[in-house]
Amino acid sequence: MKVLIVSADNFEDSELLAPYYRFLEEGYAVDIASMTRGKIIGKHGYEVYANKSLHDVDPDGYDLLLLPGGKAPEAIRKQPAALEIARRFFAAGRPVAAICHGPQLLITAGLLNGRRATCYKAVVAEMKVAGVLYEDAEVVVDGNLVTSRQPSDIPVFMREIMKMLRR
Amino acid sequence: MKVLIVSADNFEDSELLAPYYRFLEEGYAVDIASMTRGKIIGKHGYEVYANKSLHDVDPDGYDLLLLPGGKAPEAIRKQPAALEIARRFFAAGRPVAAICHGPQLLITAGLLNGRRATCYKAVVAEMKVAGVLYEDAEVVVDGNLVTSRQPSDIPVFMREIMKMLRR
Repeated sequence: MKVLIVSADNFEDSELLAPYYRFLEEGYAVDIASMTRGKIIGKHGYEVYANKSLHDVDPDGYDLLLLPGGKAPEAIRKQPAALEIARRFFAAGRPVAAICHGPQLLITAGLLNGRRATCYKAVVAEMKVAGVLYEDAEVVVDGNLVTSRQPSDIPVFMREIMKMLRR
Repeated sequence: MKVLIVSADNFEDSELLAPYYRFLEEGYAVDIASMTRGKIIGKHGYEVYANKSLHDVDPDGYDLLLLPGGKAPEAIRKQPAALEIARRFFAAGRPVAAICHGPQLLITAGLLNGRRATCYKAVVAEMKVAGVLYEDAEVVVDGNLVTSRQPSDIPVFMREIMKMLRR
């Protein structure tokens, strides 16, 4: 099983680290992709090494795309390579999990219209404009898509992701 | 399954949060105990609510004691109630997991003499003085005791903890 995390500086630390450690615990391989290879730094100061640049990523090589929140998605959504990665996951019906501000990338990629999803409260307004069937729930599963609102939702977010990957 | 986390201000955020979320994902109940009930704040600024004071804890009600690192253990080891909790877990042979500076509490409680364990590099010298058979490994399992060195060890630390709890 192979997971791709797409993020950038100012990621929400716990939303990247807790899933990352969880996947490694399970024995999954994890790549972290950002604008360029190298260190990215979270809002709370944690440093993570992005071992791939967005341009090096072959989306077909992964079983899950994970999008942590924080301020990173606002930067990531401006990258055409990131939008293309998200679109390839959706086109193949492969699992995509986004938490907090993470769904912003999927909105910009035009992938959420008519889909059931949740997100951080500050993102709700733009989600609705994008045609998302927003729900205020700790986790929403709609087909290949798993979304959650905030760090305190990580336990149920991960529970649903692991369920989906084990199917 | 019920887990007790003992910590205090200046805990290493990821070493408390990642296991905490992991246990909740698994459906385990988790209590967090500190000097007094109320908010504790990690080195990186994360806030966690300690729902128990050390004096309210009945150690026999738990299946695992988890000790995160950071600067918290240096404060916790000065609390007789915390030492007593650790001794009760060891007396009953119940699982105890400590990471980074977490083993400092167990050293002060006099529980590690002759035991195999690891810890954060800054703690190695006092471990050896305390008679610990120190190993520089990502995780060391010795009977009821699981120890790891640092945040990057969390995946294997949690893997061994979950294995022990499922037995």
